[in-house]
Amino acid sequence: MFKQFSVSGGVTAPDGFFSDGVKAGLKKDTLDLAFIYSEKVSNIGAIFTSNKFQASPLKHFQKNNIEETNFILINSKNANAMTGEKGIEDIENIFSRISKTLPIVNPIMSSTGVIGVFLPVDKIVSGALKFDLKSKNNDNSSKAIMTTDAYQKQIAIKVELADGRTYSIGGMAKGAGMINPSMATMLAFITTDLKIETDVIQQLLKEITKTTFNAISVDGDTSTNDTVFLMANGEKDFYDEISFKESLKTVMKYLALEIVRDGEGAKKVVSFKITGAKNNEDAEKVAKTLGDSLLVKTALFGEDPNWGRIAMAIGASGVDVFEEKLVISYEDLKVFNKGVNLFTPEIEEKAYKIMAKKEFIINCDLGLGKGSFQSYACDLGYEYVKINADYRT
Amino acid sequence: MFKQFSVSGGVTAPDGFFSDGVKAGLKKDTLDLAFIYSEKVSNIGAIFTSNKFQASPLKHFQKNNIEETNFILINSKNANAMTGEKGIEDIENIFSRISKTLPIVNPIMSSTGVIGVFLPVDKIVSGALKFDLKSKNNDNSSKAIMTTDAYQKQIAIKVELADGRTYSIGGMAKGAGMINPSMATMLAFITTDLKIETDVIQQLLKEITKTTFNAISVDGDTSTNDTVFLMANGEKDFYDEISFKESLKTVMKYLALEIVRDGEGAKKVVSFKITGAKNNEDAEKVAKTLGDSLLVKTALFGEDPNWGRIAMAIGASGVDVFEEKLVISYEDLKVFNKGVNLFTPEIEEKAYKIMAKKEFIINCDLGLGKGSFQSYACDLGYEYVKINADYRT
Repeated sequence: MFKQFSVSGGVTAPDGFFSDGVKAGLKKDTLDLAFIYSEKVSNIGAIFTSNKFQASPLKHFQKNNIEETNFILINSKNANAMTGEKGIEDIENIFSRISKTLPIVNPIMSSTGVIGVFLPVDKIVSGALKFDLKSKNNDNSSKAIMTTDAYQKQIAIKVELADGRTYSIGGMAKGAGMINPSMATMLAFITTDLKIETDVIQQLLKEITKTTFNAISVDGDTSTNDTVFLMANGEKDFYDEISFKESLKTVMKYLALEIVRDGEGAKKVVSFKITGAKNNEDAEKVAKTLGDSLLVKTALFGEDPNWGRIAMAIGASGVDVFEEKLVISYEDLKVFNKGVNLFTPEIEEKAYKIMAKKEFIINCDLGLGKGSFQSYACDLGYEYVKINADYRT
Repeated sequence: MFKQFSVSGGVTAPDGFFSDGVKAGLKKDTLDLAFIYSEKVSNIGAIFTSNKFQASPLKHFQKNNIEETNFILINSKNANAMTGEKGIEDIENIFSRISKTLPIVNPIMSSTGVIGVFLPVDKIVSGALKFDLKSKNNDNSSKAIMTTDAYQKQIAIKVELADGRTYSIGGMAKGAGMINPSMATMLAFITTDLKIETDVIQQLLKEITKTTFNAISVDGDTSTNDTVFLMANGEKDFYDEISFKESLKTVMKYLALEIVRDGEGAKKVVSFKITGAKNNEDAEKVAKTLGDSLLVKTALFGEDPNWGRIAMAIGASGVDVFEEKLVISYEDLKVFNKGVNLFTPEIEEKAYKIMAKKEFIINCDLGLGKGSFQSYACDLGYEYVKINADYRT
């Protein structure tokens, strides 16, 4: 048995972690460069995008086989993607210059922004030299990593075990556009003061990403920079698997849903809960097809309980499904039952009321087996188009 | 050698074909019910949607193993999809009632519109009984099959062989929403007065659909009703494979591009021409990922030459690709060359001018082999959202 408490501090909540953001001039008079620093060198695991064109910071991490570090440098505005060898050299150059002043070990970079432009190396070096590595200003750092995000996303929880021992987990993320199921497009940074081996970190990230960051969809696109990092610095000299796994899931799910809530132009978050699939893989395919369907997402935006589009997307998912076995419900309100449309004026009115909510579940029972999966998606409206038609300007 | 001439008449251009549309009351005071009638019983082939929830008219066709017919009845406003056994019985009921008056043989139905609502059988029967089967009013029929289409889509060509023999091919289509690569969501009806065996028709449709209707994307959704029909009534007692294959491709490509041009809210048509892929399958995957990407389509709408999004989509296609081998060009203007961003203020200005065109090609050479594929997509703007947020109302 263990207890979870919500606490403040974001990524700096666990002992020995520090973080701050500064204005380095990548954006106009806005926070745009952040760090996470651990006093003790920390074990780290990472999950990266499935996009074949991985950005330079991802290549840099993998090239150096980094398993422990005390420093992550994060910039917004520039993705340092499709920048070839120079993209990696720029990172090495930045670290070589700032390491003369800052006590960094195996430093890591993480970037988000426009693709195909070289990093403004001098600006980043000057910005980084302004860092106070003993600062716990998680509000600044969670703001500095934003691109088209409307608000910062962070969380911290303190876990108390039955024997009185405590530890913390902190996290921050950025999301907004290019959010897609095959490694949701975002950056997420999670810290804990537990002592966890790197291969255990890696295993946990892989497992929990599947049902959290990889279960969300804003627009079905997959960026070149997606990353989830988990740092465990061992300030607390123990590890408790059961409570940590559960608590890490709480943190990752919270950040994933925050990303959906703040999807570009999103007004609502809808969960597609698929049950009765032949197996979990089929359920996942159906749930993700629903979350990615433009016709479904625009119907959510229009608050139209058009279950025909739900059926269309299920049928298009590539999974074997049967009209006479399918049940579709908005929350607990059945609207299609094994081949029969249940809409009456009364049922339809109730469905409209559910569609007007900010968050709700659409349940689809395929009636074929025990497979299940739950995905999370936002609606898609005018604002999405506006933001993405104008993004570079 | 053969010559092609553009002629009027749409689906009624080939000898012995008739077509008209009437107001049956499915829509408010608008043409909504059409027919295609052939004096001689005609061989017919069909390609249907890959959606697992095929609509009732598709089930009806397959249940009856139809290989020849003289009559297709087409309604808009109601898709007769997700309507179970009753959906098929309604079709049989309609045909049983109108066959007392109209000389129909193996009649076929084709429907488009809202999913999950039963057909208004009486209205359709009354409408069909108003048909003049000797009418050649292809303008009316091509209008009656429209849903959110902004304009009707039809074509007819006359083919003259070296020895003086002639024949014709006519076609009409509807498209607009739910247009996707895995059987582009639309209805298309093609007629010819040549004499062609049903299995040959089927083979031709399968082959040519791949590079025409299956190469287009409006929104990446796949409807329950997609159909391409080809009727060959043998009024001309011959078949000429070489000219027909070429001419059928002309007709199908024209109709497919018309559907993209009239994609919901579309302002422009962009072709993604992929070359240098390891094989054609890889090229097709990349071309379709580009055509479906929301970030790419909104950048087209914003007329932003943001090649980073093109690269993002190529990398996300699941195909093995390499930054240092990729070349991206807008028309003939290279913007990314084997790892190097070629943008200078001059190049960027030229790229902006190409993006402002109504139709253009984006060339992507993967530098890996000889595989190629060309897809066609429209931009995605506010109008798409507006149309689809409000569709049922």
